[in-house]
Amino acid sequence: MSTGFATMSVAAILAESATRFPDSVAVVVGPQQTTYRDLWREAREYAGALKARGIGPGDPVAVLIPNVADFPRVYYAVLALGGIVVPIHALLKSEEIEYVLRDSGAKLIVCAAPLLGEGAKGAALAAVELVSVLIPDDKVDALPFTRLEDEARQATAIETYEPRHPFDTATILYTSGTTGRPKGAEGCHLALVEQVNVLLLSTFDLRPEDRVLGCLPLFHTFGQTCAMNATFRAGATIVMVPRFDGDTALGVMIEQQCTIFMGVPTMYIGLLDAASRNVERPPLRYAVSGGAAIPVAMIDKFREAFGADIFEGYGLTETSPVATFNHVGRVPRPGTVGQALWGVEIGIGNPELQESVELLPTGELGEVLIRGHNLMKGYLNRPEETAKAIVDGWFRTGDLGTLDDDGYLTIVDRTKDMILRNGYNVYPREVEEVLARHPDVANSAVFGISHETHGQEIMAAVMLRPGAQTSGQDLIDFTMEHIASYKYPRHIQIVEALPLGPSGKVLKRELVAQYG
Amino acid sequence: MSTGFATMSVAAILAESATRFPDSVAVVVGPQQTTYRDLWREAREYAGALKARGIGPGDPVAVLIPNVADFPRVYYAVLALGGIVVPIHALLKSEEIEYVLRDSGAKLIVCAAPLLGEGAKGAALAAVELVSVLIPDDKVDALPFTRLEDEARQATAIETYEPRHPFDTATILYTSGTTGRPKGAEGCHLALVEQVNVLLLSTFDLRPEDRVLGCLPLFHTFGQTCAMNATFRAGATIVMVPRFDGDTALGVMIEQQCTIFMGVPTMYIGLLDAASRNVERPPLRYAVSGGAAIPVAMIDKFREAFGADIFEGYGLTETSPVATFNHVGRVPRPGTVGQALWGVEIGIGNPELQESVELLPTGELGEVLIRGHNLMKGYLNRPEETAKAIVDGWFRTGDLGTLDDDGYLTIVDRTKDMILRNGYNVYPREVEEVLARHPDVANSAVFGISHETHGQEIMAAVMLRPGAQTSGQDLIDFTMEHIASYKYPRHIQIVEALPLGPSGKVLKRELVAQYG
Ligand SMILES: Nc1ncnc2c1ncn2[C@@H]1O[C@H](COP(=O)(O)O)[C@@H](O)[C@H]1O
Repeated sequence: MSTGFATMSVAAILAESATRFPDSVAVVVGPQQTTYRDLWREAREYAGALKARGIGPGDPVAVLIPNVADFPRVYYAVLALGGIVVPIHALLKSEEIEYVLRDSGAKLIVCAAPLLGEGAKGAALAAVELVSVLIPDDKVDALPFTRLEDEARQATAIETYEPRHPFDTATILYTSGTTGRPKGAEGCHLALVEQVNVLLLSTFDLRPEDRVLGCLPLFHTFGQTCAMNATFRAGATIVMVPRFDGDTALGVMIEQQCTIFMGVPTMYIGLLDAASRNVERPPLRYAVSGGAAIPVAMIDKFREAFGADIFEGYGLTETSPVATFNHVGRVPRPGTVGQALWGVEIGIGNPELQESVELLPTGELGEVLIRGHNLMKGYLNRPEETAKAIVDGWFRTGDLGTLDDDGYLTIVDRTKDMILRNGYNVYPREVEEVLARHPDVANSAVFGISHETHGQEIMAAVMLRPGAQTSGQDLIDFTMEHIASYKYPRHIQIVEALPLGPSGKVLKRELVAQYG
Repeated sequence: MSTGFATMSVAAILAESATRFPDSVAVVVGPQQTTYRDLWREAREYAGALKARGIGPGDPVAVLIPNVADFPRVYYAVLALGGIVVPIHALLKSEEIEYVLRDSGAKLIVCAAPLLGEGAKGAALAAVELVSVLIPDDKVDALPFTRLEDEARQATAIETYEPRHPFDTATILYTSGTTGRPKGAEGCHLALVEQVNVLLLSTFDLRPEDRVLGCLPLFHTFGQTCAMNATFRAGATIVMVPRFDGDTALGVMIEQQCTIFMGVPTMYIGLLDAASRNVERPPLRYAVSGGAAIPVAMIDKFREAFGADIFEGYGLTETSPVATFNHVGRVPRPGTVGQALWGVEIGIGNPELQESVELLPTGELGEVLIRGHNLMKGYLNRPEETAKAIVDGWFRTGDLGTLDDDGYLTIVDRTKDMILRNGYNVYPREVEEVLARHPDVANSAVFGISHETHGQEIMAAVMLRPGAQTSGQDLIDFTMEHIASYKYPRHIQIVEALPLGPSGKVLKRELVAQYG
């Protein structure tokens, strides 16, 4: 097939906003504000330095930087050269970093000072060159790292971005998916640019005057696309928070007069908690949740506390990420993840079939399938895994769900999280929704542990609100009242905190390992 | 290169608006209004009939229909099946139609009743099946044509559109380009969808409540993309006018309360003329001009008469079409065609070099080059012509222009229209701008005729305003006062009308043939 002459680049997102909104503030970090003009100039200066190091079209560059202005600087610098950004989760240990560097074939890693501990070890293990950002002047002599800032001062800034073929890879994002070692999902310029277009045109309501709290980690697709790229494409302002905690986030939102909050459910817990200690409120127009199921009770509590609706969306790293959304501007339907994005189709498939896709009738429960402009190119160097993930043109999510007559999708659970007890399917999500309704419960995770006679037994780990005294047995009694008896948790462990992955999702496999 | 798993379809434009704006009016033609729900259902019914005739993915279907609701019905029906739309200019004669049918490999032609005269002859010459639309009941028995409407009633409507690869061809638009027989420019789903996204996100200001006058022919890329696809993508209303004349267009705009007018310069002449006879005005927010240069004097007259600005854009069939635009929302710069579209780059190249591109410094005059998401896939079955048109990744427009420091493009003229008189370059465009400032001039075309000693001599054909009595000599005297003496026209012929091509452009080659 002819692939024509069209070109695209994710770098155009920043480059064009630098032309169209040069004096608007693109990024706020603490007291520091960076305009679009400056951010793009700085990115072009970094690009000049990277180019001098030999980075060019098609070269993967790993980026290990927290949510500060250097993240977009380096991100767009690499993309402007036609390179490929390989963001590294900020919590990875050196061997995990080594794995990502080797697997992606990264030519270089750009590592921020606070993350040099693991980053430099990982780079050494993988024998990949490292260049630092953000090392303060008074530390640089003591450290064996060169600074990209210094190199940028020597180099000639590039003039503009390299046009790319729409299917050239722009990012490689590592995801564990359902099983196995992390796989690198290749996102192309087309999928990333089109995702942002569709978010702005037909999904969100994001305008140049908006101020978005950017607390979602930028190394993850949700923060990178919805918070950073969409904000920049709109010419709005992202207020970055390098490390999330509820009180800080609320304080920053008030001080910076944020109008939009985007987060994962665990962040909402922190925010609600902070709101009980702080009566001031930011001028929020709405909030967005994704990445994991948010209990309906939490949406209600948030509306009460902040006077704003939460619009929940759904997607995966492999789908750029948003696939469905409670579109801003329509009344949200809490408990659902909304309707398919413009140009995206959702199917419900028979989860038993592996080799082919059999679509089920509307209303039936099955595996959520996704098709559209947002699909990844595949998993880097893993044709077999790619073939398993994308069948008959549909991406198989590994999530179970139902679609109603109006096209609203409800995620019942992940296939692999489903509990099979005495031959009955129990969906943890449903039990978590009930627990969330208890006034003392801040967060919970329900999972299966193995059991001699029942096959699996239902267990919950529960985090209480500060000061609450409820016992596990109280909560068991509470759930028994609200849910069929084959579904309520037989064991409830009160915990200080739930184990969270780097993008803020509860790591159920750790709970299973601990209690199973 | 891996081209991944992303899918796209231009058919999503109508399909999605049918979901999002089901009860909004998509099309108005005379007294008839069609909602998005109905238009999409009707398109799916037509698609059912076309499918029963064997039309499927990749099949080219010719469409010879004026600006009525059946145009989008058939257009989206073919696209929904994964087919390729080959729109035929409504003024072509049977042998020209034969040529397009043969060249495109069309499997079928859908022809509207009023165009069956030439359409059926052309289909017979090319031995291509024909199916009609719009034959009234009382005529059908007398005519040897089947009706798509009848077949649609028998067939089963399709459910939704076939997803396509972003680089699959969606339309083949015939264009004469600079020289030779018409060539089929292949537009892919990606370029067409992305063009509309960028028009709506960053170029126009087109909202669901807008009512756009759709008088631009839909078989041409300007009407198809800017008037039809952009309007449908926005969920707004297009008020179609099957045959343009100024009084009708003004009357319809008043009656239908149109808020946006899109036209080629000759249409503005008709509108201004009509406005001198009719004091009522539509509630226009703005107007858009493209397809040919609009004289600055006409923009001023329009603002006076209609209280609205004209935003001029520039592009070609090969560039989907818009490449630059006086973006709505910024103060337009009359005389320029505005700035590059989001994600599009404009270069000025050395016009002497054929094999490669040499970019000239800002401000210099040269050939306008275009690069970005809007480039065609190429000319169908013409690799050599494609290779000449797209050099080093840039599309060579054959237009001469300059780019200023702010990125505003001024089109000086088409390369081939330039007149060489006594060794001096004369750009007809500049002379036409002067003529347009004369109060009695409605429209003019300046061209070169051969001359024994000067090589070429400058001539103008001029259309006067109704009732004006100015002579050719008066106009020669007028231009002499305003322009260097090597540039003013030595011959001026007063004409009743200028010869217009099917998309409303003045056909200079006919003038040269007549007077040269
Ligand atoms: N709104 C949501 N509700 C439930 N699960 C979600 C939601 N959004 C994302 N997920 C889960 O997150 C997974 C994707 O993870 P990731 O690729 O890391 O973004 C999906 O397969 C879902 O299991």
